[in-house]
Formats: sequence, C-alpha cells, structure tokens
Amino acid sequence: MRTIEWNKGLVTTIDQTKLPQEEIILKIKTLNEMVEAIKNMRVRGAPLLGASAAYGLALTVFNSRVSNREALIEELKSAGKTLKATRPTAVNLFWAIDRILEKIQEANKTLEEIKEQVIQEAQKIADEDVKANRAIGKHGAELINDGDVILTHCNAGALATVEYGTALGVIRAAWEQGKKIKVIATETRPLLQGARLTVYELKRDGIPVKLITDSMAGFVIQKKMINKVVVGADRIVKDAIINKIGTFSLAVIANEYNVPFYIAAPKSTFDLSKKSQDITIEERKPEEVTHFRSQLVAASGVEVFNPAFDITPYKYVSGIIYEDGVFFKKDFETFGINTFTDKK
Amino acid sequence: MRTIEWNKGLVTTIDQTKLPQEEIILKIKTLNEMVEAIKNMRVRGAPLLGASAAYGLALTVFNSRVSNREALIEELKSAGKTLKATRPTAVNLFWAIDRILEKIQEANKTLEEIKEQVIQEAQKIADEDVKANRAIGKHGAELINDGDVILTHCNAGALATVEYGTALGVIRAAWEQGKKIKVIATETRPLLQGARLTVYELKRDGIPVKLITDSMAGFVIQKKMINKVVVGADRIVKDAIINKIGTFSLAVIANEYNVPFYIAAPKSTFDLSKKSQDITIEERKPEEVTHFRSQLVAASGVEVFNPAFDITPYKYVSGIIYEDGVFFKKDFETFGINTFTDKK
Repeated sequence: MRTIEWNKGLVTTIDQTKLPQEEIILKIKTLNEMVEAIKNMRVRGAPLLGASAAYGLALTVFNSRVSNREALIEELKSAGKTLKATRPTAVNLFWAIDRILEKIQEANKTLEEIKEQVIQEAQKIADEDVKANRAIGKHGAELINDGDVILTHCNAGALATVEYGTALGVIRAAWEQGKKIKVIATETRPLLQGARLTVYELKRDGIPVKLITDSMAGFVIQKKMINKVVVGADRIVKDAIINKIGTFSLAVIANEYNVPFYIAAPKSTFDLSKKSQDITIEERKPEEVTHFRSQLVAASGVEVFNPAFDITPYKYVSGIIYEDGVFFKKDFETFGINTFTDKK
Repeated sequence: MRTIEWNKGLVTTIDQTKLPQEEIILKIKTLNEMVEAIKNMRVRGAPLLGASAAYGLALTVFNSRVSNREALIEELKSAGKTLKATRPTAVNLFWAIDRILEKIQEANKTLEEIKEQVIQEAQKIADEDVKANRAIGKHGAELINDGDVILTHCNAGALATVEYGTALGVIRAAWEQGKKIKVIATETRPLLQGARLTVYELKRDGIPVKLITDSMAGFVIQKKMINKVVVGADRIVKDAIINKIGTFSLAVIANEYNVPFYIAAPKSTFDLSKKSQDITIEERKPEEVTHFRSQLVAASGVEVFNPAFDITPYKYVSGIIYEDGVFFKKDFETFGINTFTDKK
C-alpha cells in the first residue's frame, strides 16, 4: 500500500499524527492543505516530504485559473516558495520542488503542457521513490544476517516514504528473504514516531519488534542485545548525516562498542555540496516536549529546547545504503564525503 | 523543606508520581503502606529510598504488638526482607535496613530499648543524609564555574533525598554562592522525573532551567551548549556507576566530546565489594513506556524492554563528588575503583 496517492487533483494520504490509534485518511485538495499537513507533520519523513511537496505543485497547477504560461510559472514559483518555508531540514522537499521548477523552464511549452508536465513529474518523483526504496532494501538486506537484532530510530518506513521504507525497507527485504531477524525500536521522543509508526508497521508485517525509550538504546548497544543499527536520513551532507534527533547519540555509542551503524536513504536525500554548518536544524514548538497530546506532563511554564534533528559526523557511520549500492567507510572520500571534518 | 518526616508513628512525604500537577501529601502509617509507596515510586531516589526503608522499620516497631525482644527482632527481620524485595537496584535501601538490623543485634537490650533504637537510627539515617547532601553541595560547587551550563538527568534533587539533593545539591550550592549557572534537564523517560521533578525543584529556587528530551542530550553536548554533566547514582560498585537509564549514554558522549562528567552521591550509595555484573538491573512494567498516565501512546500490544537503570563504566566518569570530597579519575584506583574492567 502506498502512503500517498494522486488521483485527478486529489492527494490521499494518512494522518500520521493520529496513528496508530486512529487511521484517518486525509484528502488534500489544495496547496494550502498540503502546506498545513507538512507543517503539522501529518505527512513526514524525508522521502515522503519530497513526494508531498511535488504533489503540492501538482495541486497548484490542477487548481490554477491563470490563462497564460508566464502567470502559471509565477504561480508555481510562489507555491514552491511557500512549500519550502514549511520545514527547513530534510532536503528532499527542496530537491523535489527544484526538480519540477527546472523541468518547466524549457521553452515552447503551452500552459496545458506545463500543467501536464508538473503532474507527470510529481508522479515520477513518487514512483521513483518506491523503486529506490526497493533497491535500498535489496542492497541493505545483504548486510543483514539471519538472526540479527537490529536497532532502529524514529520511523524510516513505508510511512516516511511513498512505499516500503528506507531503514525499514532494509529490514523488510531481509525478512522477505527469510532471515529471522528482530527489531528493537526506540520510541523517538518527542513525537513518538518509533512507538507509534515503526511498531505499527512492523507488527502489520509480523516482524518481531520490541519497544524501548530513547534513553535505553545505549544500554542495549552496550549489552550487545543488538548487532546492527539501521536508520534513515533527512539530509546527507559533505561532513555528516542529518537525521532525527537522537541519531547522533546512537552513532557515537555504536561506534564506541563496535556495532555497525548504517544509514539507509535515497539519492534525493544527498546534498553533498553543503556542510552541516550550512543546514538549518529545525526547532519545533515547546508543547511537543511539555505535553502528551493535550495533557501537560512537565512542570508548567518551563523553557524548552526542541531541535528536531541532529548531526552525525561520518566518523561514526559504517556505511550508507542507497539505491545504487552501499558506500562503506573506505568509499566515503571517493563519494565526496569528508570523514575528517569533525574536530573535537 | 524535608522530603520525608517522622512524627510519632506517622511518616509524611509527598506523592512524587503526582508532581508537579498535584501536591499530594502521603501519610504513611504502616510498613505495608511504605512498601506500596516504594514499589510504585511515590518515594524514589537512592538516598530517599534509604530513609524510607529505615522509616519502614521504624513503623514496624511503632506498630508492633509483640511482647518480647526475640519476637520483635524476628518481626524486624521479616520487615527488612519485605522492604528489600521492593526495588533491587539502589543500594541505599539495603544499606539502611542492614545498618538498623545490625545495630539491634547488641545484647541486653529490652523490647522498649530496641524500639527506641530503631526509631532513633532511622532518624539518624535521615539526618545524616541531609548533612551529606550539604557537604556534597559544598565540595561539588568548587567544580562549578560562574556562567557554567550544567546538564543533569533524572532527579537527584531534594525529592530524591531527605533534603537539598545530590546532583541538584551541587547546583544549588553553586547558585547559593552567587555563580550565575544554568541547567539543562533531560525529561527522563519513561517516568519523566526530569520534566516533572527536577524542573519543579529548580523553578522553585529560581535557578534557570531548560527542558530537553533524553535524545537531545547528545546534541547539546556535541554543540558545547553545556560545560559539565552532573548526575546522581543508585549504586557505586567496583567497576561502574549504576544510575537511571540514560546516564550511560550521556557519559559516553560527554567523554567523546571532552565534557567533564560528575557523579554526586553519598557514601550510603557505595557498594565497592560488588561488581556491576552482580547487580540486578530492575525491569519495570511495559505500561510505563506504552502509556502516558492512562493513555496508550504506542501501537497496542507491543513488547517492551524497560530497564530502569544502566551501567556506566568508570572510564567515562571524571569524578565522584561525595560528602568527604571529590574523587577524581586519578584517585579511582586508591579508592578501590577499577577503571579498566570494561572490555569492549
């Protein structure tokens, strides 16, 4: 089942803020509705943000009332700007918008041709993500042994992508090959994507999963209760992986205890012209930390620091699984990745 | 204000499971009520568990109806056994019980003398803890500079002790000396002792505090947003510190980024005849992770691993602040602490 679908001006997806207690299908018909869904994390996960932004542009052309190509291009540029202002860290969102906007710059296109092209390109972005995830799964599964226990963080599953997942794609592919693996999932505070989404996905597939709090991950690594860590990425830059807050801690401890630490992400997540210092780490509202749903759980009025992502220097990363294969530590330099930029 | 008080057969304390939203005073009159309060963490924190167990024995003698000293001693031994079965990890609980039971073994005591002695010894244990915390604060404050930002985990405050606190005692003492410090507190999943109790205590004292999730601690260490880590301990053994789950991860990352990592704990927490492998790490019920209060927040029916403590080898620890001073890394061997037992 696909996480996001396009059908003649209607984008259908699931409200991930309500899962798993409620399975509410979102019917998104306008750019503004898509912007709201992205901002409030009803859709989330780097690859899914790419497809969602692309569909945001598709909705823009579908609903457009302008009558000439220049006006449509302006409308698309403005929509792109609005979409880019939703969430600053995952690069796939920017990548998808830029890809579509570049595509339509070609001369001699009529208004209708541009509309058609935007919608087709959005579909293509979504379809390519499915293929990429399947390929990531295939390459990643080769790293997984029968009987492995794999630690994952946040949700890099079907729900974070268009289908199948990146880190969970690797786990799924290994499972489909008959490898008897088990997963330990961190709950992933503050928004509990691990407890809510990863556990939900794995249980549906019948893959054994155990839930821990984020603070317990160090213990399970130290005690060798897991053999590998596999997580996704929101942006892969020259000197580091940027992913859900908590990833960095897992990487440092895995490295300290000689546990392989893998990133699984499609090329749409790569942004190797940039360094981590150039990237905005999104800070989200305090209520995500102080409240559970609407219930206050902290001492009232406390100041909060709530960064949504962290930065994992390459020296802690064993390999990057992507759709064309796996880059191991020894390949990083060739790949344009600098493992020596992290000065203590 | 003292966290726990004895007054003629009545132990008064605050229900820490309800803080900070509700300030409910518990009036504990029997051993069984004390056992329930300990098991359900209405009272918690290693030094406070010591005092609570001691008062559990005081309640036993206060309510005893036996008429000879041998029967009273049997009753106390049985009460000690019941109290020891509540929570397995923090040593202070065992230490307090053994201290009282040893005391009454002396010959030639009458029934009334034994009763009097148990109550006096319980009071002494509580009073000594207050003095120890003040001394820990004094020694620890010398390590804190004006302007420091200190990361702490869980609650090692007044609420974890009889008064003043261990890690928060250090912070309080530095603050009372006029040092303009700030604190970053981890929320401490699953039971949120950081978000609920540490923030509550620091706000009452007017000490600036910012709340983060446990997974954000790595980020704030990496970014040098803090200068020091100060936490408490539940048991200090020959090869490691045992403390609230999540402590180990903080220590590994602090060590990796050259941030001093201090433990603050009284001698009643020391158990240097034992090694970490001899200690039972308490595993608590799954609902602590899957539910917030009574609300299910994870995918239903998921298996959970919920260890309440973890093990931090000494190689990650910069120093132990206790009532007689500070042991730094260089002193560990003299002190009977083995820094080289953690084999990767």
